[in-house]
Amino acid sequence: MKPYTFEKSGALLERAKKVVPAGIYGHLSPVLLTRGAYPSFFSHGNGSHIWDVDGNEYIDYMCSYGPIVLGHHHPKVDEAARRQSERGNCFNAPTEAWVELAEHLVSITPFADWTVFAKNGSDVCTYATEVARAATGRPKIAKCTGAYHGTHSWCSPLTNGITPEERENVVEFRFNDLESLRKVIDENPGRIAGVIVSPFKHDASHDSELPAEGFFSGMRQLCDANGIVLILDDVRAGFRLHMGGSGELFGLKPDLSAYCKAIANGYPISACVGRESLREAAQQVFFTGSYFSAAVPMAAALANLKELAASGGIERMRVSGEKLRTGMLDQARGARFAVTWSGPPAMPYMTFKADEGKHRRIRHFCGECARNGVYFAPLHNWFVSAAITDRDIADTLAVTEKAFASTRQAFGE
Amino acid sequence: MKPYTFEKSGALLERAKKVVPAGIYGHLSPVLLTRGAYPSFFSHGNGSHIWDVDGNEYIDYMCSYGPIVLGHHHPKVDEAARRQSERGNCFNAPTEAWVELAEHLVSITPFADWTVFAKNGSDVCTYATEVARAATGRPKIAKCTGAYHGTHSWCSPLTNGITPEERENVVEFRFNDLESLRKVIDENPGRIAGVIVSPFKHDASHDSELPAEGFFSGMRQLCDANGIVLILDDVRAGFRLHMGGSGELFGLKPDLSAYCKAIANGYPISACVGRESLREAAQQVFFTGSYFSAAVPMAAALANLKELAASGGIERMRVSGEKLRTGMLDQARGARFAVTWSGPPAMPYMTFKADEGKHRRIRHFCGECARNGVYFAPLHNWFVSAAITDRDIADTLAVTEKAFASTRQAFGE
Repeated sequence: MKPYTFEKSGALLERAKKVVPAGIYGHLSPVLLTRGAYPSFFSHGNGSHIWDVDGNEYIDYMCSYGPIVLGHHHPKVDEAARRQSERGNCFNAPTEAWVELAEHLVSITPFADWTVFAKNGSDVCTYATEVARAATGRPKIAKCTGAYHGTHSWCSPLTNGITPEERENVVEFRFNDLESLRKVIDENPGRIAGVIVSPFKHDASHDSELPAEGFFSGMRQLCDANGIVLILDDVRAGFRLHMGGSGELFGLKPDLSAYCKAIANGYPISACVGRESLREAAQQVFFTGSYFSAAVPMAAALANLKELAASGGIERMRVSGEKLRTGMLDQARGARFAVTWSGPPAMPYMTFKADEGKHRRIRHFCGECARNGVYFAPLHNWFVSAAITDRDIADTLAVTEKAFASTRQAFGE
Repeated sequence: MKPYTFEKSGALLERAKKVVPAGIYGHLSPVLLTRGAYPSFFSHGNGSHIWDVDGNEYIDYMCSYGPIVLGHHHPKVDEAARRQSERGNCFNAPTEAWVELAEHLVSITPFADWTVFAKNGSDVCTYATEVARAATGRPKIAKCTGAYHGTHSWCSPLTNGITPEERENVVEFRFNDLESLRKVIDENPGRIAGVIVSPFKHDASHDSELPAEGFFSGMRQLCDANGIVLILDDVRAGFRLHMGGSGELFGLKPDLSAYCKAIANGYPISACVGRESLREAAQQVFFTGSYFSAAVPMAAALANLKELAASGGIERMRVSGEKLRTGMLDQARGARFAVTWSGPPAMPYMTFKADEGKHRRIRHFCGECARNGVYFAPLHNWFVSAAITDRDIADTLAVTEKAFASTRQAFGE
């Protein structure tokens, strides 16, 4: 195989740097990858494979950081979008797709009675906190230390441009530490409107952590006892772990849940679903956007959710993720590496213990994989899509085998 | 012509109310229209015409509240989107369309050196305020009383679910009142990071107001003298009045400008453009979203902006808007109505003086128009797209003539 080079990516990045601050920003920033090992621009995709602008091909384990779940260019999703697009997308009122998608989301989500639509994960996480405040008349939101719930002022991971006053009503507790949540509630009696939590701890550049036995049921009890709205941020994990929302997998019964990413296989839409008891509060919060009622992403979402369910996509992702884990952990042992493999099978996160949080080995390892056609990001959980085949896994393991060897060689014994 | 009825719309709205709070929310809420006169759901569109789910046809003067500028289903825009869609939309890094659109936006915007992309108008208005804060190290943002800059906590028109602390750093002045801006600056010495203003005052349910002679140049001087970043919110008006941004039309030279709506003829994308001096600050603000790098809306935006320029769309919208104004003002006089017609020709806003802010006549008038195939919203400025033809104007005037007569009849002398 020809070695991967990135001439066209490099030239585009130079052009981009002239007209975009840093060239590429946010979670796609090249500084989060491995210098020289990754493309900066993509050309096209198909199923589990993507091609960069230099023609290099990759098996995709990042799935655009979550949106792609059935694989790139899924024919049924794209066909539904195309059919809607031929009628139109954006009007002075919604289309029938608005009702159909809302009915479908409510029908597949056991706790939910209603839904609203938006464009970003940030939109719906923030909306959920506002509904909680409107419902309770209380100001404060409790979130887990280190958890990402979007870029809005109350929760952005970086505070440049954000005032302390905008975070004044945010308090923190620790994931899997019920005592820390109880303490926060006790310290703010009658002041906490909502608690927001992801279905497992998936903070970037840290090992993931599944909910401990009793954590979610304890949260539910604490929220009920104190009149607090329980919000699930299912933006990253939603529709990768369970069709009824990731709370179903882990025994969490939220009052509100935020979806984005995998909901429409890359078409831009997000959603917040909620309980009947919060419908009135939901109506009181002003929530709108130029494209919130656009029909094409709704048609795509409906096709995506139906196909995911009909084709057993959730189970396929779990099984593929387990095969990947088994194979790679074997290889790590063979290369005498102690690694931590965390998170659910379909959303794994791997670290080298010897990295001690500095990410040197994982950057090298993932860089070697990328240069050889397997796209993992070093500081973020990976996403195993439903398009990954056994052949993909075998091809991947051939690459990771060499990447472990290269990492061993680079870092010595 | 068969009278317009709304059986299918009504049935869909009943279904929607079960699964969406209020059925339809935000700026599309039916309570902002005229009871019984408007459809609640649309089916398809073509050029300047749209069809609701009951098959009723309308000449479209709302343009999806701004996104549609070349007309529904413009072949060149849709073809560019379709071609990009065949390659893919959402990847682990941007596509070439990211660079091409950024270069194009910078090239057509006289003051701008860089751009970032997002999904909502709210995203980019908030981002601009954060860049201003990051650049100046100051906390406060000055905005005009009554101006709409999106739904984020610092500026949402309704405060349900929002805490007072989140608005603590927002101060207000009056549009076209330089003295009120000077006062706010004097009262907050060294504390104002940015001033945000729309290119003309277009607050919903109020007459629009063009910038008075000297207002924008005075703002620029005040900002320069006090180290304040001047932000143009061009979300609603951008690419309807001038291809270089609406500041060019009115003599405003901003430091940052926010675009959304008409940028891509309905495909979901927004952008903030800025000066070189703010590039560093722009890089410091964390800004990202699942679909921010999606290529299809970028390809659509590029095609839309090029076609708007090549086809003289801006001039066509102005001329059509003037014909509409001339015709309707004649009719109003004929029906002995004193009306106020405000805003630029392509974005008119009409009120009946006798309504005295209660909107009773305008609701009746717009309802009559809608029932007869001309879609205006009663409490919001209208949008004249580049697809409006002379035939559309003639057909519209035939309807508005009768609507004035009906309003006269309903409200007496």
